[in-house]
Amino acid sequence: MITEKSLKETFKIDFYRWKTAITFIGKNCIATRGYFLEDLIENVNFADIIFLLLTGNLPSQKESKMLNAILVSLCDHSITPPSTQVARLTASTGSTLNASVAASLLAFGEKHAGAIEKAMRLFQNTIKLCETEEDIPSLAKKTIKEHLQNAKKIPGYGHRYHHKDPRAAKILKVAGKLECAGPHTQLAKEIEKTLHKTKKIHLNIDGANAAILSDLGFHWSAGTGIFMIGRLPGLIAHINEEKTQEKPFRKTLKLEEIQYYGKKPGKLRESKNLDETIQQYTKKYKKLKHPTAF
Amino acid sequence: MITEKSLKETFKIDFYRWKTAITFIGKNCIATRGYFLEDLIENVNFADIIFLLLTGNLPSQKESKMLNAILVSLCDHSITPPSTQVARLTASTGSTLNASVAASLLAFGEKHAGAIEKAMRLFQNTIKLCETEEDIPSLAKKTIKEHLQNAKKIPGYGHRYHHKDPRAAKILKVAGKLECAGPHTQLAKEIEKTLHKTKKIHLNIDGANAAILSDLGFHWSAGTGIFMIGRLPGLIAHINEEKTQEKPFRKTLKLEEIQYYGKKPGKLRESKNLDETIQQYTKKYKKLKHPTAF
Amino acid sequence: MITEKSLKETFKIDFYRWKTAITFIGKNCIATRGYFLEDLIENVNFADIIFLLLTGNLPSQKESKMLNAILVSLCDHSITPPSTQVARLTASTGSTLNASVAASLLAFGEKHAGAIEKAMRLFQNTIKLCETEEDIPSLAKKTIKEHLQNAKKIPGYGHRYHHKDPRAAKILKVAGKLECAGPHTQLAKEIEKTLHKTKKIHLNIDGANAAILSDLGFHWSAGTGIFMIGRLPGLIAHINEEKTQEKPFRKTLKLEEIQYYGKKPGKLRESKNLDETIQQYTKKYKKLKHPTAF
Amino acid sequence: MITEKSLKETFKIDFYRWKTAITFIGKNCIATRGYFLEDLIENVNFADIIFLLLTGNLPSQKESKMLNAILVSLCDHSITPPSTQVARLTASTGSTLNASVAASLLAFGEKHAGAIEKAMRLFQNTIKLCETEEDIPSLAKKTIKEHLQNAKKIPGYGHRYHHKDPRAAKILKVAGKLECAGPHTQLAKEIEKTLHKTKKIHLNIDGANAAILSDLGFHWSAGTGIFMIGRLPGLIAHINEEKTQEKPFRKTLKLEEIQYYGKKPGKLRESKNLDETIQQYTKKYKKLKHPTAF
Repeated sequence: MITEKSLKETFKIDFYRWKTAITFIGKNCIATRGYFLEDLIENVNFADIIFLLLTGNLPSQKESKMLNAILVSLCDHSITPPSTQVARLTASTGSTLNASVAASLLAFGEKHAGAIEKAMRLFQNTIKLCETEEDIPSLAKKTIKEHLQNAKKIPGYGHRYHHKDPRAAKILKVAGKLECAGPHTQLAKEIEKTLHKTKKIHLNIDGANAAILSDLGFHWSAGTGIFMIGRLPGLIAHINEEKTQEKPFRKTLKLEEIQYYGKKPGKLRESKNLDETIQQYTKKYKKLKHPTAF
Repeated sequence: MITEKSLKETFKIDFYRWKTAITFIGKNCIATRGYFLEDLIENVNFADIIFLLLTGNLPSQKESKMLNAILVSLCDHSITPPSTQVARLTASTGSTLNASVAASLLAFGEKHAGAIEKAMRLFQNTIKLCETEEDIPSLAKKTIKEHLQNAKKIPGYGHRYHHKDPRAAKILKVAGKLECAGPHTQLAKEIEKTLHKTKKIHLNIDGANAAILSDLGFHWSAGTGIFMIGRLPGLIAHINEEKTQEKPFRKTLKLEEIQYYGKKPGKLRESKNLDETIQQYTKKYKKLKHPTAF
Repeated sequence: MITEKSLKETFKIDFYRWKTAITFIGKNCIATRGYFLEDLIENVNFADIIFLLLTGNLPSQKESKMLNAILVSLCDHSITPPSTQVARLTASTGSTLNASVAASLLAFGEKHAGAIEKAMRLFQNTIKLCETEEDIPSLAKKTIKEHLQNAKKIPGYGHRYHHKDPRAAKILKVAGKLECAGPHTQLAKEIEKTLHKTKKIHLNIDGANAAILSDLGFHWSAGTGIFMIGRLPGLIAHINEEKTQEKPFRKTLKLEEIQYYGKKPGKLRESKNLDETIQQYTKKYKKLKHPTAF
Repeated sequence: MITEKSLKETFKIDFYRWKTAITFIGKNCIATRGYFLEDLIENVNFADIIFLLLTGNLPSQKESKMLNAILVSLCDHSITPPSTQVARLTASTGSTLNASVAASLLAFGEKHAGAIEKAMRLFQNTIKLCETEEDIPSLAKKTIKEHLQNAKKIPGYGHRYHHKDPRAAKILKVAGKLECAGPHTQLAKEIEKTLHKTKKIHLNIDGANAAILSDLGFHWSAGTGIFMIGRLPGLIAHINEEKTQEKPFRKTLKLEEIQYYGKKPGKLRESKNLDETIQQYTKKYKKLKHPTAF
């Protein structure tokens, strides 16, 4: 029988519009990374499926517990992050839950959410250089030295609200107990040892998670993804709280809280020849170097 | 010759994936709403193309000037709106310009950006009831009465930072001069007359623009679109200012500025039988009606 | 000692900028919904923290397993949903992971992602009317009748790609085994019984999850949030696949796949008096009712 | 009198939360870049305000006309760009206008919307090296040579749907007529001359606009901003068309259009010892290098 499909195949008409190795969909059939979804529903937990989707493999029981703990550690940090402020400000304008979440995730810029990925890259690139475990302490010293020389911060250390991030110590303890701490975690701890001695700086939750995720086999480019997954429930809770507990479009700023430092306001003179007037203004104005224009 | 196209046509294989009446694209040919783009580039200004895209027609010269003035009036209101705060907070995390703009537009929720559309709908629905211009003053009174009875605010009146919005009076003057003020504008002014007498409330820029846009023939559902177009340049300026004048990920909030009113922190007791412990906690906890949970 | 804080308190200067009941942050201290985060990291899994954040309570072990299964069931449906297409198209332009996720979540509009919430609301509002469990079969019949009379689809039934959604049957089986199926689930099944007899339509995964989530005590307004949490890992996998396996800015559409049905392109005549020409065009044009303008 | 303000000043309590040089807001007073908004409403057009916001200066009449023409040239390119597909797909799920616009702008990634900015940077950096206009032809040759040697495309040339972009020639003609074409435009044309001879490639609208915007004094980092401003009206028209002319959540993809190339679906064996089974699977599986995982 001649069908659309057979014709397309015979005449090599473009057939596939997309290709994917993630999930197979057939009629009444869904299989993700090679496992029927019915089986997954009955046998694995949510962190397992995250592991499966992002690495292609199911975790062992210990790896599963470890990823669960990491995701728990990321769940919320109250309204201090700009992303949570953005979530609530957006919700306060009457936007939907999903739009408010989307706005918030746009504030996961590299200066805010990038530390985990940067730390993973640093740890992974450093450990690649390492041939025996004995090398790790010296690699740690070398890493610190290089950053100091270039006046660069080492990602994953220090916290602007905490002196000693209570989550970092606990997640490292869990990693030890679950035998999930490998060379990347050892490196992270070695760096902390020196930084603490010289600068009283501790590993933060981003740095600790970055090290453990690297030992679990995650590629550094998955870092921001895992942070978003871990933080999403907290964002949803904040958006719901804003929508149900606060008045919409409440005044979040008074005029006196904004400092204006631009050009003193003046009048465009009314004139038959506006172009001339404007050019006059413009000329005068061009002498000032304007502080904020592109 | 048998081609993919001829085959598809012969055998009625799905051919079109999208359809549109906005722009025709052929090889080396672009025509928007029926006009070759080369012609438009040479002969019309940006507001004309906005008018053309949103209404299907090019404006007259007076209509063109009017729409230009409306768009100018919407350009910026400093950092007071939540959308501008969102733009800058997002930019402060190192996000790109377009991501920061997108976040900001997500805060154009109906409680913030919806007034122009709501006022347009109100004016348009009211004027539809109106058979002669003499009716307008009585329709205005009826409108106010209905809103008062239902304890509803009339959209487009009053401003949380200005007693008398300086943009509204000016845009109405321009509309008069350009002969663009029709029945919707008359209605808006009549409502203002009464509201000012009884409550000292003035028409704001949303209300004034809503009336004039209605007289220009825009459907009320275009209101938020025109607001976004008018405000976009200001948002871009703010994002650029944040990126070039401020330090990234600056601390925008101190811990003491956040009031915590939830459950007093306690310890999950360590226990062999965690489930029991948690249920214990949970039971006690369930008695409190939690203020923010879904 | 006079401090900023004491001064603010004495003189009642605005002190708190935000308030929240979700997480308490002190120096070196983080506690969510009343539990120290260190404790949570060590003792609960990721689904537990989702339960805690969205309901205010920790789940029992069975509830925890149930929520894990629900989240697994939502993880991915290949590229069929518009939200996944949006994720990949956005990623194909070189946008960051978080921006691509945000775009995707914006396509969780109520026509796509709304079914779970609508089904939860329907089930919850119906069960509220129910005094004894005997009532459920008759409430099911009444619900179907009302929808039929108003020619409205019942949310949570039928699927555009599957005749019998394989996830729905499995999640209901799991709910039975875990003793998490209550009156809402019974109602959902009763409705399915009749719909299947009369229309060969089955419960889909949205409907099944909506019923079980309602029995777990989630308010219907949490539905889209839970869908987003469950789907996020899949979206991240797709964005990563697009970025690593496909060429950026690949051509996803041929010109012949777009059907143009607007005004036939013509030339703006060159004229000293452009305004007149345009009005001429415009007049002619106004006679056509334009199909797409606002 | 002791006021909140005086106290704050006396005791140096944090006073300003934001600072800006863009717009001054006082009670009943709004002034942007030093001009009262009432004056701007009456005297300048929308492109002027865009010029003012992004450069700090008002344009001359010729510059104003030039920027208007550039913005017109960017207005729409039907559904071919991924950003427009994203706009419509998002709208098809029932999302709001502003959410659909935001999703679309997120697809203004550097591979799609970046050409204008990259071309501006190239032209501006090259012209900086140029001491006399005589240098331009040799700088053009040097630029081409460098790109060829590094196998890099020169941004702003060639178009995937047009052999000769009809907008580019026209905008250059307008720039000539308005005396807005300077050294950057000359450079762009010189590069085109050679590229056309050797590769039959023409300047596209991004390249032409990049050159003229550079001659108008815009910094290269404003490029994507101007593209977004110019394209926004078209996006809004498409979103409105989708919402009013198409059925919501229409099926945009058939299962047969998705090619699955991942692991062949198999069953997770039911087992008392799931961990062991999974590890078995995992081990076998780890031998395959998975094509898409992070």
